[in-house]
Amino acid sequence: MTESAARTALQLQSTVKKEGTLELALARVALPTPGPEEVLVRVDASPINPSDLGLLFGSADMTTARVSGDATLPVVTASIPPELMGALAARLDQALPVGNEGAGVVVEAGESEAAQALLGQTVAILGGAMYAQYRCVPAGLCLRLPEGTTAAEGASCFVNPLTALGMVETMKREGHSALAHTAAASNLGQMLNKLCLADGIGLVNIVRKDSQVEMLRGLGAQHVCNSSLPSFMDDLTDALAATGATLGFDATGGGKLAGQILTCMEAAACRGTKDFSRYGSTVHKQVYIYGGLDRSPTILERSFGMAWGIGGWLLPPFLGKIGFEAAQALRERVAAEIKTTFASHYTREVSLAEMLQREAIAVYGRQATGEKYLVNPNKDVAPAAG
Amino acid sequence: MTESAARTALQLQSTVKKEGTLELALARVALPTPGPEEVLVRVDASPINPSDLGLLFGSADMTTARVSGDATLPVVTASIPPELMGALAARLDQALPVGNEGAGVVVEAGESEAAQALLGQTVAILGGAMYAQYRCVPAGLCLRLPEGTTAAEGASCFVNPLTALGMVETMKREGHSALAHTAAASNLGQMLNKLCLADGIGLVNIVRKDSQVEMLRGLGAQHVCNSSLPSFMDDLTDALAATGATLGFDATGGGKLAGQILTCMEAAACRGTKDFSRYGSTVHKQVYIYGGLDRSPTILERSFGMAWGIGGWLLPPFLGKIGFEAAQALRERVAAEIKTTFASHYTREVSLAEMLQREAIAVYGRQATGEKYLVNPNKDVAPAAG
Repeated sequence: MTESAARTALQLQSTVKKEGTLELALARVALPTPGPEEVLVRVDASPINPSDLGLLFGSADMTTARVSGDATLPVVTASIPPELMGALAARLDQALPVGNEGAGVVVEAGESEAAQALLGQTVAILGGAMYAQYRCVPAGLCLRLPEGTTAAEGASCFVNPLTALGMVETMKREGHSALAHTAAASNLGQMLNKLCLADGIGLVNIVRKDSQVEMLRGLGAQHVCNSSLPSFMDDLTDALAATGATLGFDATGGGKLAGQILTCMEAAACRGTKDFSRYGSTVHKQVYIYGGLDRSPTILERSFGMAWGIGGWLLPPFLGKIGFEAAQALRERVAAEIKTTFASHYTREVSLAEMLQREAIAVYGRQATGEKYLVNPNKDVAPAAG
Repeated sequence: MTESAARTALQLQSTVKKEGTLELALARVALPTPGPEEVLVRVDASPINPSDLGLLFGSADMTTARVSGDATLPVVTASIPPELMGALAARLDQALPVGNEGAGVVVEAGESEAAQALLGQTVAILGGAMYAQYRCVPAGLCLRLPEGTTAAEGASCFVNPLTALGMVETMKREGHSALAHTAAASNLGQMLNKLCLADGIGLVNIVRKDSQVEMLRGLGAQHVCNSSLPSFMDDLTDALAATGATLGFDATGGGKLAGQILTCMEAAACRGTKDFSRYGSTVHKQVYIYGGLDRSPTILERSFGMAWGIGGWLLPPFLGKIGFEAAQALRERVAAEIKTTFASHYTREVSLAEMLQREAIAVYGRQATGEKYLVNPNKDVAPAAG
């Protein structure tokens, strides 16, 4: 056995067992030696995004979580509701690595010029399996961060920034001129607000609490509507009319909110028109559901004419659709503005082992606005064991 | 007053009165003399389509209909539920003509060559205001019917045939290869079935009754699923997998059906795949709602991944989007196949006065599959009064 084949490092793995339990554990996995076009990155920072939780928790009821093992190698076990097991058939008894994005330092590089150029650099990666001490990836997958940027600052270069940019890009490509956004007080929502302010794009922020209205107004937001108020539909119609927003992005998915946005867009479109049409306005109104914070059914009252659409929106196929060059331009803008427009804020930095403690799971698992954890897989552990 | 200004003919008019009642009446309106590019058509046949009923009934509760006046000039009055009056604001106290399409003979023509060429011809028109003895339209709006075609045979050249063709055209333009269709036993559904059989396109027919399954099978349909059976979801998944249909057209709009189609499309797309993705398959699944037979809310369980869309679909904007030449090609195909692929069947022919009898309203107002009325505005009445 060569030295490199014997090297191992910790990786978080999520397993759905066929008997109906989820197991989260830290495994020692072999560290590969980078091929000519590859680099080995020491992962120093990786955020826990809502989009990581589906793979991580595998539909388990995390209030049933029990932790065994010791403090450095904890094992979490939780029950999965039987009715949800059917949808998990394709991942049964496989130990799956987790963590969509992160950043770190290139500690080894293959022979190619592109790989060698990255040695010692701090890079961001959207590659999956980032909740691990090391990650070996093609050099072309690395986004080199500007001089003086830390891994923690660059950890969230992709999911939220590219989603915010993707929303604006979708708006432009589909012929709309302003946006509405739900769960607008989220990290992503604040980022979208900054982006729209920077680019002069009208944005209607939809939140559920007065404190979130105040927070967003404090960040310069012009239009913030509180869906808990009795005046919500009127407020939303006013804001949509003022901005001309005919495209919405909904993070919640369930309940009536997506349909209410369409209804208010239609009411805004009909203001000032005199001709009656039983098919409603000819203005196309679109809402994309990009998250599932509310798992209840989507309910559409269909009081918005016939020129409307609702659909799923997901970042990777969107980036695939616009093509490599257009996507790369978005990535480069993120790197250039990672400390300003696309800066993220975290409430706590945890190690891989700390991430598997019940108290931590209870906090980041709630997906509560304003609580965001950053994982540092090399916190409190020795570097790669030889 | 010149002779032509004094000529009048009957026209059905629908009025929503601000006190909350609907009034349907036959009015004597002045007959215009055609301009140079216009023709005057004696309307001999006009179908009552579901798409006519919204304008005709103005949301009134037709079980409250009372008929006054005499047998030749009846007046129907019905109550409109107060909560529906808001949406009717734009049509208050206006006597609106009704009837989307129809056919008849050109009895007068303007001086232009195009208009003169139509004199004496039987033509079909999609022009609105067809529930009238005469209709004056631009010559360019007339679809000349093949020699030997009666007005009754050509009365339904547009709404159903162009909708069926529009569904197939949408399928091709949006990259799908087969279709699913609800309320498939309808006149339109039977026409779509004939069209798909003729063109070799896979079609999944969704109906609610065993008798409708038998009827469609008798017409050669290969895939017919009965949504009333406990095995519906399995049956539908099998049929969608067999045809590869990833596009559905839903006439009902309300309830869970549109979402069930997406769920079964996703299940069909996942058959045989081994890789787990929490975002579901990457196959785009689309359902267009083109009618509102079920006015209850649309309920989406969202068990179909992220690559999906639902939206409204309406014929006129679709024809506008594909452009005049493409739309004209569809119209010409309809005229050529009006006695075969696009033949319609009617259960009764009524005069304008008979259309306003309670018994008739009760039948055609139900939008029941298999009941379709044809209006002959010149039945039982004298030609244009001088």
